[in-house]
Order: sequence, then structure tokens, then C-alpha cells
Amino acid sequence: MATLADIGLAAGINILSAFVFFVAFAILRLQPFNDRVYFPKWYLKGLRSSPTHSGAFVRKFVNLDCWSYIRFLNWMPDALKMPESELIDHAGLDSAVYLRIYLMGLKIFVPVAFLAWTILVPVNWTNSTLELAKLKNVTSSDIDKLSISNVPQASNRFWAHIIMAYVFTFWTCYVLLKEYEIVASMRLQFLASEQRRADQFSVLVRNVPPDPDESVSELVEHFFLVNHPDHYLTHQVVYDANKLAQLVKKKKKMQNWLDYYQLKYDRNNSKRFFTKTGFLGLCGEKVDALDYYTSEIEKLSKEVVAERERVASDPKSIVPAAFVSFKTRWGAAVCAQTQQCRNPTLWLTDWAPEPRDVYWQNLAIPYVSLTIRRLIMAVAFFFLTFFFMIPIAFVQSLASIEGIEKVAPFIKPIIDVGFIKSFIQGFLPGIALKLFLIFLPTILMIMSKFEGFISLSSLERRSATRYYLFNLVNVFLGSIVAGSAFQQLNSFIHQSPSDIPKTIGMAIPQRATFFISYIMVDGWAGIAGEILMLKPLIIYHLKNFLLVKTEKDREEAMDPGSIGFNTGEPQIQLYFLLGLVYATVTPALLPFILVFFSLAYVVFRHQIINVYNQEYESAAAFWPDVHGRVIVALVISQLLLFGLMATKEAATSTPFLIALPVLTISFHSFCKGRYEPAFVRYPLQEAMMKDTLERAREPNLNLKSFLQNAYLHPVFKSADDDDEDDDYDGEKWEKDSVLVPTKRSSRRNTPLPSRISATSSPSLPEVHEDSRP
Amino acid sequence: MATLADIGLAAGINILSAFVFFVAFAILRLQPFNDRVYFPKWYLKGLRSSPTHSGAFVRKFVNLDCWSYIRFLNWMPDALKMPESELIDHAGLDSAVYLRIYLMGLKIFVPVAFLAWTILVPVNWTNSTLELAKLKNVTSSDIDKLSISNVPQASNRFWAHIIMAYVFTFWTCYVLLKEYEIVASMRLQFLASEQRRADQFSVLVRNVPPDPDESVSELVEHFFLVNHPDHYLTHQVVYDANKLAQLVKKKKKMQNWLDYYQLKYDRNNSKRFFTKTGFLGLCGEKVDALDYYTSEIEKLSKEVVAERERVASDPKSIVPAAFVSFKTRWGAAVCAQTQQCRNPTLWLTDWAPEPRDVYWQNLAIPYVSLTIRRLIMAVAFFFLTFFFMIPIAFVQSLASIEGIEKVAPFIKPIIDVGFIKSFIQGFLPGIALKLFLIFLPTILMIMSKFEGFISLSSLERRSATRYYLFNLVNVFLGSIVAGSAFQQLNSFIHQSPSDIPKTIGMAIPQRATFFISYIMVDGWAGIAGEILMLKPLIIYHLKNFLLVKTEKDREEAMDPGSIGFNTGEPQIQLYFLLGLVYATVTPALLPFILVFFSLAYVVFRHQIINVYNQEYESAAAFWPDVHGRVIVALVISQLLLFGLMATKEAATSTPFLIALPVLTISFHSFCKGRYEPAFVRYPLQEAMMKDTLERAREPNLNLKSFLQNAYLHPVFKSADDDDEDDDYDGEKWEKDSVLVPTKRSSRRNTPLPSRISATSSPSLPEVHEDSRP
Repeated sequence: MATLADIGLAAGINILSAFVFFVAFAILRLQPFNDRVYFPKWYLKGLRSSPTHSGAFVRKFVNLDCWSYIRFLNWMPDALKMPESELIDHAGLDSAVYLRIYLMGLKIFVPVAFLAWTILVPVNWTNSTLELAKLKNVTSSDIDKLSISNVPQASNRFWAHIIMAYVFTFWTCYVLLKEYEIVASMRLQFLASEQRRADQFSVLVRNVPPDPDESVSELVEHFFLVNHPDHYLTHQVVYDANKLAQLVKKKKKMQNWLDYYQLKYDRNNSKRFFTKTGFLGLCGEKVDALDYYTSEIEKLSKEVVAERERVASDPKSIVPAAFVSFKTRWGAAVCAQTQQCRNPTLWLTDWAPEPRDVYWQNLAIPYVSLTIRRLIMAVAFFFLTFFFMIPIAFVQSLASIEGIEKVAPFIKPIIDVGFIKSFIQGFLPGIALKLFLIFLPTILMIMSKFEGFISLSSLERRSATRYYLFNLVNVFLGSIVAGSAFQQLNSFIHQSPSDIPKTIGMAIPQRATFFISYIMVDGWAGIAGEILMLKPLIIYHLKNFLLVKTEKDREEAMDPGSIGFNTGEPQIQLYFLLGLVYATVTPALLPFILVFFSLAYVVFRHQIINVYNQEYESAAAFWPDVHGRVIVALVISQLLLFGLMATKEAATSTPFLIALPVLTISFHSFCKGRYEPAFVRYPLQEAMMKDTLERAREPNLNLKSFLQNAYLHPVFKSADDDDEDDDYDGEKWEKDSVLVPTKRSSRRNTPLPSRISATSSPSLPEVHEDSRP
Repeated sequence: MATLADIGLAAGINILSAFVFFVAFAILRLQPFNDRVYFPKWYLKGLRSSPTHSGAFVRKFVNLDCWSYIRFLNWMPDALKMPESELIDHAGLDSAVYLRIYLMGLKIFVPVAFLAWTILVPVNWTNSTLELAKLKNVTSSDIDKLSISNVPQASNRFWAHIIMAYVFTFWTCYVLLKEYEIVASMRLQFLASEQRRADQFSVLVRNVPPDPDESVSELVEHFFLVNHPDHYLTHQVVYDANKLAQLVKKKKKMQNWLDYYQLKYDRNNSKRFFTKTGFLGLCGEKVDALDYYTSEIEKLSKEVVAERERVASDPKSIVPAAFVSFKTRWGAAVCAQTQQCRNPTLWLTDWAPEPRDVYWQNLAIPYVSLTIRRLIMAVAFFFLTFFFMIPIAFVQSLASIEGIEKVAPFIKPIIDVGFIKSFIQGFLPGIALKLFLIFLPTILMIMSKFEGFISLSSLERRSATRYYLFNLVNVFLGSIVAGSAFQQLNSFIHQSPSDIPKTIGMAIPQRATFFISYIMVDGWAGIAGEILMLKPLIIYHLKNFLLVKTEKDREEAMDPGSIGFNTGEPQIQLYFLLGLVYATVTPALLPFILVFFSLAYVVFRHQIINVYNQEYESAAAFWPDVHGRVIVALVISQLLLFGLMATKEAATSTPFLIALPVLTISFHSFCKGRYEPAFVRYPLQEAMMKDTLERAREPNLNLKSFLQNAYLHPVFKSADDDDEDDDYDGEKWEKDSVLVPTKRSSRRNTPLPSRISATSSPSLPEVHEDSRP
């Protein structure tokens, strides 16, 4: 049991580290040579030019204006100043709605914390159960005096907790309802006010049945000409360009090496460098680096051209999928929402994702394979979830004073020093857990990719769901049950359904201090560390030093990253879960959660405005997931409170809790019916309205040319950057492929087209580092 | 424990009663005056004229041809002779597919029974566990010697059971898959080959938002003219004619009474009869019956006319729902499958049910109300399911010899007589259970109606689901757990999730004899009793004697009934469950199940050909439910086998069973994705094909006039039969309302239009009986 002093020390450490991060950030961001790391969004938008071009030489790299250091926190009000509508224009709806999750946390927990402290804390505090227990040699901390543990068995005071459970539930549901309403209308408004976009007119059709007489392209054209005669406009087949994409990637890597040696060569007065051809340049034949890479690039270029020709000419490289475009949004909306063919596993139509959102590798997976893949991944995820549990529980049981002393009795004298003891108790369990979780998102993303989702946004949503489940089982339940007694785990499976909430419920007040320390490490210091952007900072400067020759190179060296819905959202959800579970049990935890939500809101608002570059725009398609998970957290909190109450012998009051989960679940089903369709379907009324408006405004619009090349595999698009392939493009990709200029400036928004085809977004920056000798 | 002799006696009794039923049926059906009870389907089809019109007087009523009595079972081959395609034409796809459920039972269980008897029975039989146990004074029956109970603990022989569990699962899944495929293609073929029907062109739109400036009709027209400009044809608003329907019903009842007294008056040489005006004619003022009813009918007629005018003129009697018809099937398919409006709770579009399938009362329920109704019914059903359990368990514990002796020790001497003892053990538990279940379907149907479903078919499907769940919890689990030990029930909730399959699994072999007796009572004698049609027989003759004056009256007195999906299908599912659960555990039960499936198949095929008149045609929309429930039975059987094995200490072999439910569930999700869309959506390709064909065949078709009055509340349609309202109809219901004659002869298929608007179909015939003094 951690005492108040332990918690105070941990809080001190974490506040200090957060403070250190902020100061470091304040110093680093003001240095002009870091400008591209801390303000890449503005560069990508073209609204900021390189500061290194103006002023004195030293000022190009170091900021000497002392005044600006004193106001080291003034980015906070700046971050909050931008109004939401401007934010949507600036960073997209996804980002703006993502911030609303934090805001929703504040909206829920500020009144909940207030009520809990004014009503529940006095009710708990004015008992003396724990003091009496102390006389009987049962240890308890000061935090516990504020918690439900301090209320005596079978007390009438439990009525207060039950009523507050109802109040908290109703308030949470009310906020959820309002937020769902707002986000749904924001989404619809966003879709309505948007520019003309290719995905509004397009439908992705998959599982085109093979036909011996016709090519995929002809088949698609005939099918849609027959079944959507008034609306079909054009289509684009999908090429299996995975091998080509690999070659292009490899060529780019070689180019990087060439640049590196070229730069070295220039700086070192024309000294020759040598490299080895084998693994990581460590073994194999020794050759002249410049010659070697030049010839390799030459070879690869030829291969790329050959592969490109093969893809374009070989009918086998056309996968049985196509992007079909319609004359009107109405036609596309109809086609996306209806079944086309007798056999529902053929001619599957879905809304086409945004072009930059498409995950090209998965477009060709047939239906039966998808079912099997899903089964395999479900089983794999089950094992992943339940085998991860063992090491976490082991580390956590070590990370208690008693555990360490048992394993290594010789360090007992060191541990017994008050400061170190507090440090271990307040800090270590959180760190151990956090370390475990770092490598998880990549694994989950790979699993989602294997499952065959066709857009980056759905991949991220799926990974987020899995990550959340993992967090729920391992971080939340794992910490409660295994942390308090690992040996309970085995007996846990053999308990009755009514005993499980009891066991967990009983353990919950005891684990409050652990979760407080977890919140401080993960939620305070972690979020403050986020703003430092340490990894991108290092990578940028490394690249800048080693590779950058031109301004274009420097632009490519920027890696602003993106929000990372698949890791960020499940993390927030854990705080919702903790907040809701502890709201009635240990209100002392709530202020820590409030600090997290406010801090994270400011930090992420700043990051979204200045740093992150969104990879795609899904128009807040993730909100139903967010909503659903808060509901899950609510139901879990109610069941655990029920279990806890059942152990408190409050027989008269406890049964009143049964109605809560029933009401919550039916509230969820109401919300699902009422708002979810706004996120998965596209109302015909809206489509018709936009079509009519457009027809009136631009009667002579050449839609076909606008849609012609919208869905081109990025590897063909990136070819535009290479000089040698220009003629080739003009030859192959249709005659009238002149893009109608739009304001969308999609080239600037997708500075790293290869990311879309890479296996895992977050791990990409390391690719260059790892292969460096 | 029932011995083999007990079972033999029970089997004898049940076979005898089935035989008696068949003989009685053979005698009764050959009597010409019963012709309308046993062959109503042919009368309704107009293919059979009344046999009372030809031949000698006696022969009109009694069949004197002895030869025909000898071949008393020759209806069986007759019933099997009709090929399936002809059956579909004759009785509709619903009936034909309903029969396939029994056929599927045979397909699954014939090979399963064969394998179980050739492999598992020898494996079980050649042990002596139970004989050894008998020495230790543990009682067991001969049936148990064939069951898994006879295999010693931790024996390697359990491998046989596990392998057979896999074989049975794969075979069942294979049959399910094939059947799903066949039924789906039958459905699509049926839909494709069908005549032009109004529901192919129509969509039901509900929750039309209120508008202060426009009427519902104008609003609907404008909305669809804007959003489906190329396809919208016409629409029909829905009138709230519930009060009118009540008045018409009341008038009809009065008319019946008038006919009754008129007939009495005619027969008794003009003697006057008196009746009382109060409750059931038992109290109140004494009046002349003929005068009273004539004046009452007069009064009601006027009320009907007034109400009809009010409904037609009052805009408040138009509910915010409408049937919208389109120019093409394509247009209707599109509208039904898409979302119309921003707000997904407004302008809800669904496929229009067949006109005779519409449940008119529920068309006006708003969205929020639906959510609340569903919640209320879910809670109510939960309580219904779990409070019904107590009386059943009580009766069953009484119905064991020990139970009866304990409650009433004085009848011990009577019970101890061998014959009575066997009778009680073999017969009573089944009867007690059956009696409980008779009143349930009506309650469940009322619950479904309250929930707001809009078609009779969906009402029946919902009731069937509920009935199945009820059967599962109360008949199956209730009989296993409560039957063997009622006191287990309470401790049951407090058991661990891994112990529940164990407890049930252990009880399963012991309950085999109970379920065998249940199958014989419910499945053998019950099905044989079904063919006698005792209730319709009595009602028909009562009506014939009391009311019938004209040939038309006689036609109305026929009550052929319908299949009753809501009661029949859950009953079959119980047999699937029993068969699958006992296949590996007690193969001795399987032959009884086989007898049930074959007997029921023949009986119901006969009934469907000769008796039942289908109320609606849903084109086998119920098949996904049937499929899903067999899957549930399969998973339950696997879990219970797992539980049973776990108690048998077969540690090496048991874990191999874990994969079975996972595989089964993923098989289900595959089937769901592959075949279910055929039952809920209408592929555009099909629609387009039919449209194109039709356009080529009948280029000058006036579709509007065909669709104009398709969806008229039946109370307005039945008005055509009344003389006085003819002029009124012509005036109100549009000018060009001449129906295009079709072959569908819908008037003949719906001889009881008031049934559609009645609260509960099966209880209707009693209405006339109850009110008779």
C-alpha cells in the first residue's frame, strides 16, 4: 500500500519531468534549425518558408532572443486560440473530432469529479472503518480513507454511492448523446461543404468473377452499363503493383546511400569510400561506394521500367477489383449501398476510400480467404492477449517492494532507503507496463493488414479496437487481478459468473494507488514527452546531416507523423474506463484524470495545429467506435460497482444497481440506430442536393476527366517525380488524363507516397536508420 | 431411472395412440360431410366442388365404400407423391421450404444415427462400468449401458467419441451448407419466376416527418419526386383504420348472431326467441332477438359509414407512413436498400411486405417508441423465461415416483403397481411440460406485436425466436438441471463458467430416458394428433349447424389454419438440439428422433397439400433463422460434450474438443456472409433483368393502375363485399382504380381478411364460440 507521501513523491517526479520536457521543448522549438521538426505542418501547407534563409548566420541556427525563452509556455494559449472551424480547414475533420474526445473527457469528468468530491468524499471520510481495522493490524493508506473502503459493512451510506452511480451514468450518457449528435452533424456538414472529391463519385467493386472471354476491365464496364445504365460513367482497374512498389522503394533506398556517399565524398575532398555488398554493408566484396550505388540504381531503374511495362501489359497483373465512377453522387450512393449480384460474395461494392486512404495490397483478396483470415486472426489475437498477461503479471509482482525483496534479498538495505522505496512503488509498475505496450501497435497493425481491410482508416480502426481489448484485459483487469495476487489468475477461470465482479470489485479500491501512479507516468509525463518529438527530432537532424543536399531533400527529411488513432484512442479509452470505474469507488483518482485530459487536450491541439500531417481524411468515421467503448467502460464500471457492493453486505441497496447496465445498453442501441448510419451510409437526399447544386453551378463540367486517374496506384503517381518515366506515363495512362485543377493540393498532403504501401506506418522512419552501418 | 421395460411400455402407448389417431383420421376424412375440414386447400383453390351436391342422400354425409377404409394409410404415399416444384406452385415457397426443415433433419440424423450405432454403441456396450457400479448399489437402466456413462473414467475409448463429435459436426455443417445453398437458390428462382407483384415495385416508408404546410401525401410525393426523380411512380398513404376495423368486426359478429336466430326461427316454425342485451346475453333487458340484432346491425352499419367517411376526410387519420411505388423493380430495390435522409430515423424505407402480409396496426409507431418497446419486451421476456421455470420444475419433480410418494404418501400402494408406475414415469413428465407450453405462443405473439413489427411474417419469425429461447432455457436446460435436482438451480448461478457445462454435461446421460418419453409424447402422438384437426373439425360442424345458410357461409366456416411457423419451427429445433446433444452421448435416442422427423415430414406434407392455407408468402425468409438455430444447437452440444468429458478425467483427449465451437462459429459467419444477403436484400442485377424482360414483353403496360390500390387497408377492401358501400368506394378511391386482372386471385387466398387485423391468429376461431350463450 502506497501512502500519501509515496504518491506525493511520484507526483513530484512526474510533474518535474513534465516540466523538464516543457522547458526543453520551449528551448528547442525556438531554435530556427529545429523549425522543420516543430512546425512541419506549416511547411507542408506552404505557409512557412525556411527560416534559415533570412538574418545573420548564427541566428539561422540559434535563437538569441532571451525574451522568447521566458514565456516558455506561451504555446499553450496559442494552441487553444484557433477556433474549431478553422481547425477543420487547417487539419481536417478527423483531427478536430479526435480532439473532441479529450474535450468529452473533460465534459464528463469535471462535473463528475465535482460531485464526487462534494458528496462522496465527505460520506467516505466521516467513517472510521479503516482506523478500526488499523488497530487490528490491517494496513491501509490515506487515499483509502477517501474511498468506499472506509464505509462500514452494510451501511446505509451506500445509498449515496448508488444514487451517484445513477447520476454519473445519466450524465455520461447525456454527454455521449450530445457529442454523438454534434459529431454526426459535423460529419454531415463536412461532407456537404466539401469540394468535389473523387471518392464521392466512386465505388470500389471487389471480387469481380473471372470470365474466360472478357478482361476484368471489359467485364466491369459491361456489368455496370447493364445494371446502372443511367449513372455509370467510367472505371479504373487495379494493378497488382506490389512488386513494382518494392522495387521503387529499394531504388529510393539506394539513392539515399548514394546521396550519403556523395556528400561524404564532397566534404572530404574527393576521398573515395568503400562499401561491402553483403548484409548491412558488413560482409561481402569490397567495392567503391559511389560506383556501386550508381550502377545498382541504374540496374534498378531498368528493372522498374521493365516491371512497369509488365504490369501494364500483362492481364494477370490486373486484380479482380476496380474503382467504378458514376455520373452523379446519387448513382455512387445507390451502388455502394445495394447488392449487385445474386451471389453476395461477387461484385461486392463499397464506398471507395479516399485515394490516399486506399490500402492497395488488400484489394485482391477473395471472399472465402477473407473469412479464413478473420478466423485465424481472431484465434491469434486471443492467444496474443492471454499470453501477454503472464510476463506483465510477473514484472508487476516483482515491482512491489515485497516482490523485489523476495527475489533479490541482498538489495534489501538499498530498497529500505525511504526515497528509493517510494520511487520503486510510485514509478516502476507503470514503466514496466508501458514498456510492454510499445511494440504492440505494430503487431496489431500487421494483424489488421493480414485480415484484408482495404483502407488505412479501417486498418487503424481495427487495430484500435484490438488494442483497446488488449488494454482492457491486460492493463486494466491484469493489473487489478494479477497485480494484487497473481495466483488468483488461475482460480479466476474457475469462479462463478457472479463471483468475478466480486473479486475484481473488491480488488479495485486497493489498486487505486497503482492506477494513480500509472496515470502520472503515462498520462502526465508521457503526454508532456510527446510534445518534445524526440524521435523525429533526432531523425531529422541525422538525415539533414547525412543526406540533405537540396531544399527538396530537406522537405522529405521532415517526418511530421500523424495522430496515430490506433495507439492514441485506446490510451484515452483507458482513462475513461479508470475514471468511470473509480468515480464512485475512489474519487481521489479523478483529479489526476482531469489533469491528464486537460494536458493532453492542449498538447495534442498544439501538435495537430503545428506538427501532425494527416495521412487520410475519413470524416470522423471512428466516432461510433469511440462512443461504443465509453459505453463498454460504463457497463464495466457498473458491473464492478455491483460486485463491490455485493461484498459490502448492502443487501437493501445493491439490487437497485441491476437496472443500470440494462438502461445503458439500451441507450447504446438507441444511439446506434439514431446516429451510426450517418457514419456508414450516405443519404440519398444529401447526394441529390449536392448533385443538383453542382449541375446548376457548373453545367459543363467534364467529370470524366476529373475522375479518370483519381485512383491510380501511388507507385505510378510517384513516377511523375522521376524524370525518366515522364514519356511513359503520357503514353500509357489514357489520352485525356489532364487533371482538372482543384484546390485540394493533394501532392502537398501526401509527401510520402511510399508510406501508403509500406507495411507499418510508425516503423517506417527507422528503415533508414537500421540499414546504416 | 426408467428401465427398458418402462420405455417399451411408453413407446407402446404412444404408438397405439398414434395408430388410433391415424385410424380416426382415416375414417373421418372419408366422410363427405368432413370434406371441407380435411381438404379445404382444394376448395380455396377452387379445384374441388362440394361433394354434398352429388349422389344419394346418405352418401352425401357418410362414406359407405368399405374398400376405402382398408387402405387407411394410403394418404401417406399420396402426400409424398407431389413433386417439390408442383408443391411450390400449389402451396407457396414458404410451405415447401418449411418441409425441407424436416427433410434436413433426416439428412443430418440418418447418417449420424447409423455411425453412432455402428461405432459408438459397440464402444460403449463393451464396458462394464455400470455393472460394477451396480454392485456398489448405484442404479442404472439398460439404456445407460449403450451410453457414454458405461465407459470407465479416463479411458482411451473417449477418443472414439471425440472423433465422432468431429465427424458429426462436419456432416451437420455440410448438410447445413448444402441446404442453405439450395434454399437460397430456390428463393431467388422463386422471386425471379414470379408473376408481377405489387411488393416488387413498392417500398414502405415510415416515420415521415410532420410538416405544418403539407399533408403526408404531398410530402411523400415531393420527397420522392426530388430524390428519386427517374423512378418514382405513385404512392398510397396509410389510414389509421383500427377503429373502423373494430366496428366492421363487431358488425360481423352481430350478423352471425342474427343468422343464428334467423335459422332457429326458420327451423322452429316461426317461434320468437329472446335475448338479453347485457354481458354474453346472460343479464340485462330481455328483448326479441331478431329485432334486437337487426337494429343493432342497422346502427353499426351507419357507424361504419360515418367512421369510414371520417377516416377518409380527417387528415389526422393518415399515419405518417406510406407505400411508395416505383416505375421499375430496380428503383424499388434501390430505395429499399438505401438511406434517404440525413436523419436516419426519418424516412425509413423497407421492402414493402406482400399486401396480405402487412400488419397494419404497427405502421405508425415512431422510432423512439420502437426502441423503448424493444427494451420493455426484452426485460419482459427475460422475466417470462425465468419465472416460468419454477412451476415446470415443480411439476416435474412431482412427476417422478419418489416425488409423488413424498408429496402424497397415501397413494404409494397404487403407484407401486408396475403398470401405473411405468405409465407415470414414461408419460407424465412429457404431458406436464406440453400443457405448460400450449398458452405460450399467444403471449409471445402479443409481445412481438407490441414490439412494432410491420409484417405478419416478421411477427412470426420474432415469436419463433423467442419461443425457441424459451424452449432452450425451460424445456431443455430446465429439464436437465431442475429435473434431476431442482435445488441445483440456485447454486447454478453461483457456479463458475467452466463448471456449468460440467454440471449439465454430467446430467445429460441421466436425462436421456426423460427426453425419449418426451419425444414419444410430443413428437409421435402429438404429430399424429395434428392430422386429426380436432379443433377445426368441431368448430366447422358447430358453425355448419348454427350459422350456415348459403354456400358462401359454408366457405367462411372453413378454417384451414396455417403452418404456424412461430410454434412449429421451435418445436423442430428442439429435436435438432436433442439429436445433436445425444448423438455422441446416448445414441439410443437417435432412432426416436428419426421416427419423429419422418412421421412429421409425411404428416405436414399431407397437411400442406390438403389443408393449410398460407396467410402470406415471405419466400422462405425464415431460413437464416432456421440455419442459425441449428448452429446454436451444434455449439451447445459441443460445449456440453466438453463439460461431460471434463468430468470423465479424459485429460489427453478432451482438449481436442476446444477447436469445434470455434470452427462451427466461423462456419456460421461464413454462411451468414455468403447466403444471408439473398434473404434480406434484392440484387440489382435481378431487378434489372426482370425489368428489361418485362419492358420487352409488355411495352404498353399501365403499371400505375396495377399498383394504385394494391396497398389498401383490408377493411376498405372487404367493403366491396357489402352492398351498401359500393357507391362510396367508387367515389373515394381514385378515379382510375380499375384493377388489372391478374392470375393471383387474391380474394380466394384471403378468405378471412379480418384475421390480418385481429390480435392473434390462432385464437380467432374461439371468438365466436366464447360469446355463444
